[in-house]
Amino acid sequence: MVEPRVTITAIARAAGVSVPTVSRVLNGRSDVAPHTRERVEGLLREHGYRRRAGTSKVGLIDLVFNDLDSPWAVEIIRGVEDAGHATGTGTVVSAIHSQPTSARQWLRNLRARSTDGIIFVTSTLTPPMHAELRRLNIPMVVVDPAGIPALDVPTIGATNWAGGLSATEHLVSLGHRRIGFVAGPRLLLCSRARHDGYRAGLEAAGLPVDEDLVYQGDFYHESGFTGGTELLKMADPPTAIFASSDQMAFGVYEAVRRRGLRVPDDVSVIGFDDLPEARWSSPPLTTIRQPLAEMGMLAARTVLRLAQGEDIESPRIDLATDIVVRDSTAPPRL
Amino acid sequence: MVEPRVTITAIARAAGVSVPTVSRVLNGRSDVAPHTRERVEGLLREHGYRRRAGTSKVGLIDLVFNDLDSPWAVEIIRGVEDAGHATGTGTVVSAIHSQPTSARQWLRNLRARSTDGIIFVTSTLTPPMHAELRRLNIPMVVVDPAGIPALDVPTIGATNWAGGLSATEHLVSLGHRRIGFVAGPRLLLCSRARHDGYRAGLEAAGLPVDEDLVYQGDFYHESGFTGGTELLKMADPPTAIFASSDQMAFGVYEAVRRRGLRVPDDVSVIGFDDLPEARWSSPPLTTIRQPLAEMGMLAARTVLRLAQGEDIESPRIDLATDIVVRDSTAPPRL
Repeated sequence: MVEPRVTITAIARAAGVSVPTVSRVLNGRSDVAPHTRERVEGLLREHGYRRRAGTSKVGLIDLVFNDLDSPWAVEIIRGVEDAGHATGTGTVVSAIHSQPTSARQWLRNLRARSTDGIIFVTSTLTPPMHAELRRLNIPMVVVDPAGIPALDVPTIGATNWAGGLSATEHLVSLGHRRIGFVAGPRLLLCSRARHDGYRAGLEAAGLPVDEDLVYQGDFYHESGFTGGTELLKMADPPTAIFASSDQMAFGVYEAVRRRGLRVPDDVSVIGFDDLPEARWSSPPLTTIRQPLAEMGMLAARTVLRLAQGEDIESPRIDLATDIVVRDSTAPPRL
Repeated sequence: MVEPRVTITAIARAAGVSVPTVSRVLNGRSDVAPHTRERVEGLLREHGYRRRAGTSKVGLIDLVFNDLDSPWAVEIIRGVEDAGHATGTGTVVSAIHSQPTSARQWLRNLRARSTDGIIFVTSTLTPPMHAELRRLNIPMVVVDPAGIPALDVPTIGATNWAGGLSATEHLVSLGHRRIGFVAGPRLLLCSRARHDGYRAGLEAAGLPVDEDLVYQGDFYHESGFTGGTELLKMADPPTAIFASSDQMAFGVYEAVRRRGLRVPDDVSVIGFDDLPEARWSSPPLTTIRQPLAEMGMLAARTVLRLAQGEDIESPRIDLATDIVVRDSTAPPRL
């Protein structure tokens, strides 16, 4: 157990207020005059105050998503819950729907009941929320399968570039020479990393990088369907398609089916994520596994360590992706 | 707001103990002598004591699953979170993995931090837990897509029989006369209800009920695959298969593919659940929708009403299923 570097008593003395007043500020209560709050918060920051381990444990972690309709949400919940459960910590799951009113409501709820730490998934942590939570002095971690640049907060991600490379290498090793790519949204770093991994795989194999074989998708099913349809319409269509999300890969399946073709007989398809449904698709999908549950687990352990006043090793940790070969990839037809 | 029928003061007087002692019993604290606890709990039960609305609001609902790997878990979480969020209540998601040690750990966590109410999903509420929670006087609701007989606890379900009937009617209306059925586990009431709906659909159409066309599955993918394989191997195979879960329907897809056949050209397939992946499968799956998010929402509202001391209308409410027609069903080949 690491002792806090400064006590509440010392802060109260420096601010010229009572110890309960400092506690009220720490707990985010509203019954403190604004100028007092500011003075106390300034001193807390200045002295790097951290809650004493154990004494203020609430027994809750907050796990915040934008939306719970993402197919990988439940994998992350599973990992966080698992790590929390083991240490007697409950996992409060929230969705803020990219709406400031919803985020404010969540913050109000949080202030009323308190929490030991917060895990944000991808882009849910906005600069105003970040500032507000800094004031409340609550430990935060970002789980970021999408690779959005974080706001000076410890982040858990996955090795997207290496995943893009090994997907491409797998198709090359089967004998494919024309490999289509359905990209994720340009703005996300993970999309760019996967795309660069695809290019690196082609270059390593001495294959040309043909921009006509790249379709700009958005990670959702529909764009995989459209991308697959466009690629298969080409005069010289690819014999394999790498979709940079599983959902887009399922869209490619549907494009293949609608053309009266079959996976993998006519076209090989590889995805990225390894959602549970990748096992249940027909044919079962070859894909790059992101260890989402493990990422959630590590995020929970990290935020609980921060709550105990411990330091962490690195502001960003990427867990390894790996390839899961199932039935959607095969050598090209001769 | 409904007032509690009896106060803590009255209970304390009747038990011959102090008011704080009654509070300690209500909060499940361990620093109360066992015989005192029993006497106080007996009086609380006898007088139908309920916590006063508002005063003891914790701002949390507990949502308890056996496992978070069920594909419909996230739909239920979404509904509960939505209803909770709106009323300033956080949703604590737990998985107890059918293990008594894990359930005890969850109960310990719960006692340490308290909760306004608990929602159990399917078979997570065991008789010992039920007894323990009764003692703690915490409102409970069961969300039960599986139709397990509940322990005298308000339950939210879906109209499984009507769903089984309309799946069968849909296939009959397309012209199918030999309709296979992949059943869910016999022990679950929902499986039996869907199976009876299938039989009723055949009988209403004047079709024979052929037990050779029924394969006993377990709701999981693998059993759908095996069931589909067996049914398609018959000398006179069905032209359509009704799988009583979407996951089993995806298994049937794979059985169809492995035989070199196509859905729906050679075999029509209909599922039950309408998981998000039903939209993304290839072809998109015709299925019976269970309103899982709405069931979660109603469960949250019900448990919060119970926490306010309100009475509810009915110990069991079934929400309507409905058919979602996509591309996996078509008239049989002539």
